[in-house]
Amino acid sequence: MEEKGISQAVIGRLPRYFRYLGELKDEGVERISSQELSGLMGVTASQIRQDFNNFGGFGQQGYGYNVEFLYSEISRILGLDKTHHLIIIGAGNLGQALGNYMNFERRGFILKGIFDKNPALHGKKVREIAVQPMETVEQFVRENNIDIAVLTIPKSSAVEVAEVLVANGIKAIWNFAHVDLHVPEGILVENVHLSDSLMKLSYNLERYSQSKKEQG
Amino acid sequence: MEEKGISQAVIGRLPRYFRYLGELKDEGVERISSQELSGLMGVTASQIRQDFNNFGGFGQQGYGYNVEFLYSEISRILGLDKTHHLIIIGAGNLGQALGNYMNFERRGFILKGIFDKNPALHGKKVREIAVQPMETVEQFVRENNIDIAVLTIPKSSAVEVAEVLVANGIKAIWNFAHVDLHVPEGILVENVHLSDSLMKLSYNLERYSQSKKEQG
Repeated sequence: MEEKGISQAVIGRLPRYFRYLGELKDEGVERISSQELSGLMGVTASQIRQDFNNFGGFGQQGYGYNVEFLYSEISRILGLDKTHHLIIIGAGNLGQALGNYMNFERRGFILKGIFDKNPALHGKKVREIAVQPMETVEQFVRENNIDIAVLTIPKSSAVEVAEVLVANGIKAIWNFAHVDLHVPEGILVENVHLSDSLMKLSYNLERYSQSKKEQG
Repeated sequence: MEEKGISQAVIGRLPRYFRYLGELKDEGVERISSQELSGLMGVTASQIRQDFNNFGGFGQQGYGYNVEFLYSEISRILGLDKTHHLIIIGAGNLGQALGNYMNFERRGFILKGIFDKNPALHGKKVREIAVQPMETVEQFVRENNIDIAVLTIPKSSAVEVAEVLVANGIKAIWNFAHVDLHVPEGILVENVHLSDSLMKLSYNLERYSQSKKEQG
């Protein structure tokens, strides 16, 4: 079953399915209906069926889904059965937090190197990997088959660093710098703007307190 | 102009508009058309106009938008003209990274306290604020008018901690724990699952390498 032209909205929901199915699997649940999954996840059963139909449906509706099968299929679709080599650029608190997050390794994202321009951080170990100076990153990327670069550096240097990485063969950037990166065709970027979600929270907090005032 | 029943998808896009308008403002740009903004942001001009129409349109289309006005209106809509008090639960790398991020303060999110159950971290300062033991958090929340709690703790304790915080008056949770929190009606939660976006990147990387193989 090949999946073509699937919307990024559907793809964006797959990790959440994956997360819930992983928990069900860990709890020993063998089968689950779209209705039960709907109740757990707070999305409609119809949405779940539509999403899964993009990938051939994953089995009989009447009998529910086989949790183990569904989990491993979604894992495969997400490319989590493959190994990706990643490096982190920026060994500050956020870079260290991401570097120390063991779960990424379990999903096939292998941290190979961590780089920072600050000499005070050079040699500091993040999970057995010593922070290296930025001068070494180009050669490192070329020689170590690195797929993904994680950018946890300020906005001011992110654009330039991204260009250097791409020129040396990086295929994907997981960007935490507070700037939308524009990269050549074929290079993938996933921007994580942490403060965007804080602002969304602020919006909803504001609306909620207004609606309480109006009611009260 | 009161904004009611606006979809979370529209709201989710406001911080990005806010970010781009802030940059335009810093560059001294005074007016911008929806077409120009569209080119910058990589969304259609029609999407931009539709989004803005939810809030009354923000001014004449023919003449473009006044950048300063649009920026301050979106800021107000997002509640960024108000001050919010926040605490961070979990003083690990991620908690420290968020605590050190000065930009939040500029947006009215004032860090009032940081808590951790690990005694080794107690007293450690994150931007002049000493990490406190978890035992003090309930009283602190009650006495300091705290609106928002940031959870950067493991999944295993997040659910219980969230309950305690809500019982003591927290209105909103910015959740980085790898679990979807279920809280009482009226409490706001914004879940940030960092690895979800890494999985999305992995999916797209996988599809892209497959399509190259098929072509080549």
